[in-house]
This record gives sequence, C-alpha cells and structure tokens, in this order.
Amino acid sequence: MEPVELSALFHAEPGDGLALRLYRAVQRAARAGRLFPEEALPSSRAAARSLGISRNSVSAAYDLLLAEGVIDTAPGRRPRVRSLAPFAPPPPAATPALSHRGAAWAADPRARQGAAGGGLFAPGEPDPALFPADAFARRLRRAARRTSPQASGYADYHGLPALRAAIADQLVRHRGLRIDADQVLVLPGMQAALALVAQTLAEPGDRVAVEDPGYAGARAAFDGSGLRLTPVPVDSEGACIAHHCRTRAGPVRLIYLTPSTQFPTGARMSLPRRQAVLAAARAQGAVVIEDDYDSEFLWRGGAIPALHALAGGDGVIYLGTAAKSLAPGLRLAWAVVPPGLAEPLAQAQRNLGMGANVHVQAAFAGLLADGGWRAHLRRISRAYAAREALLAEGLVARCGSALRLRRPDGGLQLVAEFSTPRDEGLILAELRQAGFAVSALSGYCIAAPRCGLVIGFAEADAARVDRFCDALARALGAMTA
Amino acid sequence: MEPVELSALFHAEPGDGLALRLYRAVQRAARAGRLFPEEALPSSRAAARSLGISRNSVSAAYDLLLAEGVIDTAPGRRPRVRSLAPFAPPPPAATPALSHRGAAWAADPRARQGAAGGGLFAPGEPDPALFPADAFARRLRRAARRTSPQASGYADYHGLPALRAAIADQLVRHRGLRIDADQVLVLPGMQAALALVAQTLAEPGDRVAVEDPGYAGARAAFDGSGLRLTPVPVDSEGACIAHHCRTRAGPVRLIYLTPSTQFPTGARMSLPRRQAVLAAARAQGAVVIEDDYDSEFLWRGGAIPALHALAGGDGVIYLGTAAKSLAPGLRLAWAVVPPGLAEPLAQAQRNLGMGANVHVQAAFAGLLADGGWRAHLRRISRAYAAREALLAEGLVARCGSALRLRRPDGGLQLVAEFSTPRDEGLILAELRQAGFAVSALSGYCIAAPRCGLVIGFAEADAARVDRFCDALARALGAMTA
Repeated sequence: MEPVELSALFHAEPGDGLALRLYRAVQRAARAGRLFPEEALPSSRAAARSLGISRNSVSAAYDLLLAEGVIDTAPGRRPRVRSLAPFAPPPPAATPALSHRGAAWAADPRARQGAAGGGLFAPGEPDPALFPADAFARRLRRAARRTSPQASGYADYHGLPALRAAIADQLVRHRGLRIDADQVLVLPGMQAALALVAQTLAEPGDRVAVEDPGYAGARAAFDGSGLRLTPVPVDSEGACIAHHCRTRAGPVRLIYLTPSTQFPTGARMSLPRRQAVLAAARAQGAVVIEDDYDSEFLWRGGAIPALHALAGGDGVIYLGTAAKSLAPGLRLAWAVVPPGLAEPLAQAQRNLGMGANVHVQAAFAGLLADGGWRAHLRRISRAYAAREALLAEGLVARCGSALRLRRPDGGLQLVAEFSTPRDEGLILAELRQAGFAVSALSGYCIAAPRCGLVIGFAEADAARVDRFCDALARALGAMTA
Repeated sequence: MEPVELSALFHAEPGDGLALRLYRAVQRAARAGRLFPEEALPSSRAAARSLGISRNSVSAAYDLLLAEGVIDTAPGRRPRVRSLAPFAPPPPAATPALSHRGAAWAADPRARQGAAGGGLFAPGEPDPALFPADAFARRLRRAARRTSPQASGYADYHGLPALRAAIADQLVRHRGLRIDADQVLVLPGMQAALALVAQTLAEPGDRVAVEDPGYAGARAAFDGSGLRLTPVPVDSEGACIAHHCRTRAGPVRLIYLTPSTQFPTGARMSLPRRQAVLAAARAQGAVVIEDDYDSEFLWRGGAIPALHALAGGDGVIYLGTAAKSLAPGLRLAWAVVPPGLAEPLAQAQRNLGMGANVHVQAAFAGLLADGGWRAHLRRISRAYAAREALLAEGLVARCGSALRLRRPDGGLQLVAEFSTPRDEGLILAELRQAGFAVSALSGYCIAAPRCGLVIGFAEADAARVDRFCDALARALGAMTA
C-alpha cells in the first residue's frame, strides 16, 4: 500500500513551528476520518523531501503523533495511523454553574459600601508613597539571591523559620503575647487567615459573633464558610459582646473582634469589655479571633497589650498583617494559634493553598530583625496622625454640626456619621463625581443601620482635604456663603 | 478624698517603658479590686513628682488607662477609677477542637508516601540551583521600585493585568488555547487553584474523578472540600476515563487530570483518551480540571496542545504553575476559567484569601515578556533530560530486571515499579538511611495498589545516581558480586 500523500494535508509556509503545524494537520485529518486505520505515512525522509521541510521537523511531528496515540511505529516499518473514533469536537459546553457554597464564596461583601472603582480617600488603603520601596527592593534582591533550597521548596510552606521567629519576637515585646515561634503561621493575607480559621474551627451552620458595624472581609469569610452571623453592636468602647452572645439562638462558636482599633469606627475596646469577652468566650467554649490589623501604628495612647495577652491560654487566635503598615499587595499576614493547633492548621493551610511568597517573607524578616520595621512604624504613625488631623479639622471647620466625627487613635480611616438623616447614596455619588472613593457607613452594618461616611485619610493633604470638604459640604447642602 | 498613693503600686526602675509599666500596675490593681470605684488618682504632675519619673510618662499611662476604660477623666478633676468587675484571668482555655471539615482539611495527603523530612531525589521538587536567581533578583528589585499604587493595593487581587496578558499570550502561542487575558486568574499556587475550583464548582458529597495513581495535593483539596473520589486507573496512555465515569454511584461533577505528563507515572494522554474524556464530561455535565503542571519542559516530542485547546468552549478549567519551572516558594500559579466564571471566581478567590504577591507577579511578567522565560525553559529541559537519562540508565544497569521503569517525556520524576512483590516500606527505610527521600508508589494509589518507587531526578548527578543505585540495589538484594 502506498503511503499517504502528506502534501494533500499540509502546505509548508515560511516561519517556524512547522513540526507543530504538521502534527496538527495529521491529527485533524485522523480525527475527521480522512485518514484510515492502518494507513501508512511516508518515512520521515520521504515526507521531508515531498514537503520541502527538514527531516527534523517531520520527526518531531511524528513523535508528537506517536505520543498522542494517533500513529503507531515499529522498527523498519512506516508509521501507521491508529484506529481512532471519528471525533467532532463536542458542541461548546455551557458555562459551569457555581455550587451553592461557590455562590456564597463569590458574593461581593463590599458591594453595599458603594466603594467600587478607584478614587481618593478609600478606607482601609495605606498610602503607597509611604511604602519603603528602595529598602524593600534591596531586601527582595538579596532574598532572591540567597534563599535556601529548603525555603524555596515546599518544606516551609507555613512560613520561613526566621520570619516566624521575628514575628513572635515582635509580638512578645510590643503586644504582650506569651508565645513561641512555633505558634506563628505565615499566610498570604488577613483574608486567608480568616478563611482558614472559619473553615477549620467551625462547621457550616455554626454561629459567629461579629461587630456591627464591622469588617466586610471577615463577614465574607464567614458567609463563604456557611456560618451564621450574630451581630454585636459597637459603641465608643468597642463591641458590647456580653449581652449578645447569649441569645436564644444558642451559643456562638467564634467571636470575631478588632479590639485595638475597631473597624471602621476606630473605637478602642475598654478593659471591662475585654474582660467580658473573655468570660463570655470561656462560658460558651467559643474561640476569640483577634484581628489586630493596624495596632502597630496607634498615635494616641500607644498600643495596649493585645487581648491575646490578657487571655492567657489557648482561647484566642491572634491575627496580624503587613497590608496596612506596608502594602496589601505583599499578600503577607500571620496567625498565632494555640500550640496544639499549630500542626493541623499548618497542614490545612497547605491543603487550602494558602502559602506566602518566600522572597517577601525573607525581605520582611530582614526588616523586622534590624530595627528598620520599628523606624518605619514611627514614620508612618507621624504621617497618618497628621493626615487624620488635617481631615478631621477640615471636616469640623467646613461641615460642622452636620457630621458627628469619631476620631480614631490610629489606623487609616475615620467615621463621620450624619447628625440628621441623609441620603447616603446621593452624597456618595456626588463625592465620587469629585473623585473620592469614600464608603457608606451603612454598608458595614448588619442589624443596626447607621448612616454616614467612612473616609480613608492615608493620602490626605491640605489640597485634597479642601477639595473633599468642598464637595461634601456642597453635597450636604450645608455650605455657608 | 486623698488620691491613691501610686508608689504603693509601682516602683520606677531604670530603663524605658515606664509609661507602659505604670499603666500595667494600675490596670492590675483595678482588676484585682485593690482600687475602688471613684477612687482618685493623683494628677499627672503630682504622680510624676512622687514616683520620680517624667510627667510625660505618667500622662501616657493615664491616656492608656482612659482609652481602656480603667479610669475616667474630666477637666479640672483628678482621674477616677471606674467601676470594674473584679477579674481573675479565666483558667486557661483548652485547645479548641477542629471542626469535622477542619479535620478533613488538616489531613496529610502525603503521609502514605513516606516522604517526610529532607533528602535527595524527592519527587516533584525542582533543582533550586537551576532557579535564575540573579535575573529574578534584579526583576524583583525593579518591581518593588516601580509597582503602581493600584497594583500594590487590593484592586488587582486576581492578578496584575500585565501578567494575566503575558500568561494568556504564552498559552495561546505554546499550548494552543483560544482565550483572553480576562479569563486568567493569578493565584498563590496550584493548590489554591484546586481548592478554589473544588469549593466553588462542587457541593459537599459531589463526586470527582481522579487519576489512580495520582496527585495527592489534588486529593487533599477534594477531600477537604467534602467531595467523594472516583478513582480512574492510569496506564501508558493516561487515565482510562470513559469506563470509570459512568458508575452506579452516579455522575461525576469534576474530572481532574494531568494529561500532558501524568503525575506521577509520566504517561502522556493519547488522543483517543482525550476525546473520550471530553465526550464523557459533556455527557455528564462534568467540568474537566486540566492540571498542566509541567508541560513547559517536555524534552521528548515537545508539548502537545492542551486538552483545553481540543475541547473548545467552557468545559475545561486549565491550571498552570511556576512551581516546577522556577520554584515552589514563589507561590505563583494561574487558572484559565470560562469567561462567564471569571468574575465570580475572582471574587471567591479574594474572599478565600488566595492572592499572589505583587512583586513576584511583576518579576515573572517581565520574564515572560522579554523571552527570558522560553530561554530558561530550554535550559532546564536540557538539564532535566540529561538527569533523567543518568538516573534511568543507572537503574537499568544496576537494578536491571528487578524494576520496571516508565521513562517520562518530561517532568521531574520517574516511576520504577517492582517486578516482583517487595516490602516498599523496608526499601524506603534503607534509602532514607542513605539520604534519599524518594516516595512509595503505593502512597499515590487509591483503589488499584501498585508497588514501587517514585524518584525525583531534578538534582541527579553521576555521583548521586551511583550512590542511589548502590543503596537501592542493596535494598533489593539484587546486587551482583
């Protein structure tokens, strides 16, 4: 039997990739039934001559066809087409549907805050200009050159030993924790820490107490994990946990708090409240999740020891992050877990795929070890304190009694409640027109709606504050002539 | 009423931190009931004098006590102790228990492979010495200096636009995909991609078809997500999917495959099998997950277009990673999802906390854009091809008929099955003694146990291969005199 005339299937054209194109042409013909089982292909030498391409290209194409099972070869025989079921590509599949839990994970927790899109004064965002770019760049370069083989592999999935030790040291010295480095897990962000804890320490249907108003990211992690939220009102002393944990709905399994600087109100949790939280958690067998997202740069009063430090023992899981003090894009955070949970949670972290990049870990460890970190915190604390003052004073001067300000002791945002009922959406829309991406306070609330704005001041300067206050005063209809 | 004599509570000692220590002393006394409600503290001036410390320190301590709610202050009045419930720290809480799903996430999928601890020739690990450290270090430094404010924040959580475009371009040109950059999600590792897909596209209790033997990481993601595994046997043409999807157990929701280089056997999936997979998926409404973890460096036959390319349409989710070609520690991978799922999966990714570091993204995007990436792939393909040959030839020469080798066309490991039944555990133990961390093939199996070794050759050189073959031949009792 004469071999197939390949030139009927394939025309060589200039450019490379001839092997791949020849392979595709034969594969297509075989699938379409235009080549018959046991039909012979020419030898690679003969094919190269007839097609006017190199023998190497033909051999490479034949290798692919052999590997894919399109042809068979045997020594001293020409390649033969295998028996292939004719195959028309299936009609395009429909887009797969999300599962129910997939839909829960895919909800946008910030939609109600009206903060989509870019703009100035978005809450929660640090000033990128304060990121120590040059110093960090040098450290990253060094890290990439020197990272140990062990670190660059899978072995230290839950964090570089040097970074875990440096974080533990910082927390012992500056936040009052009594812990070992073994209890520290390094994660690719606060959100990963929340999703990890929610999924490993609670079952679907369990209750979690959350601050109201509170952090939407945490709510998203709990919603996605199928937990039921028990909102706890927040006042100037933080969350009033004691009353709200003992509902008829039954005990809570987790209590999520931002005690150092309540998000978004900035309230610092008072000692009586802290004591009440620990007592309530103890009484119900609940685990407290302490989200200490920005306590490193409090500028009034300094940092109070963490709730973890007050609790002692294993009832509190402490979470920290580099997102506020450095940059969210680093995707770097840490969890302090009870010694008995360190190993299982590290394994769960790996199975969930929550690993932090090794070079950013090494760079950050260096910054912690040589004191550069504390110096950076002092620098940004001063900067943010000044910017908060600028914004707050501008608001008082321009919008006066139309707003009730709650000035925070630290952090990146302040809450301005409306003194009288206002249409939040209308005011936000006008501010967005003016280029400001502040959020609606109501979007942080669950059961107790409050009306106002959450304003990020990380990038505030005199000109921007002026423009913002102009726009807001106009929107409030409170402008004086 | 006379104010409290603070010197009874607090003794100043040399060193800094006086404010924090004074704060703690008063806080402790108030909690223990040694200070009474409404009792007055001295003015800061009087306290500073009586304690012999600076007035600033006293003021800072009072600020903390005020913020914490331990004292009240009012203009022209001395600070007063608030009414605090006496508080003995609760007895240490017990270690919280994992939830059921937490226990599923915390299982170690590799325990049965006997590969814990360090050692040479571990499968799946690339050679750290082939990581282009200097070039990557330069790119990281540049990335940290130039990353845009938008990139360093939360906006590009699912990947830098430049990287998503560069990945899409590579996949179109080298893997035959027909996709847009909008379909690419950048993730902190293959494991994150697997956990994301498992949790968003399947419900607990749904069935997923997996290769047997197969990748333990994928099984861990499916187990953690509460899915039920349907094992599919693997032979030299890859997984035999058609037969095993239509079980009495009902249809599968997901089909997980490594078609380019089956893990760990190295089998390349034949075209008839690929067609069968797509037909079976279509018939059952299943989604195919194509894990293309190391197809970039096939050295025999070159890369075949991905299954995604054959399928057309939306039925295949394609996953790739930088872990094998660069380093696992980068924590960098990507998923190509149907256009209609890009937005919800990006939101789910954010809620699950699966963000990749922004600097490694920028560095990798640069490597892709300027051709450095393809050059690197050619370099490591040559290196790994030579190392595989060294190992395979050594094994044939030294262990001969005691092993059935399956030589892969690419990747980082080869499978050596025992020709006759052997005690895997004993052989592994002896190899571990000699410093080799190879894995037990049985540990990759589910329903169809197979006995042998999975050997990583990424770090093979002549001396190590010699030592390894010595140790293995001795362990097999097959040494010739």
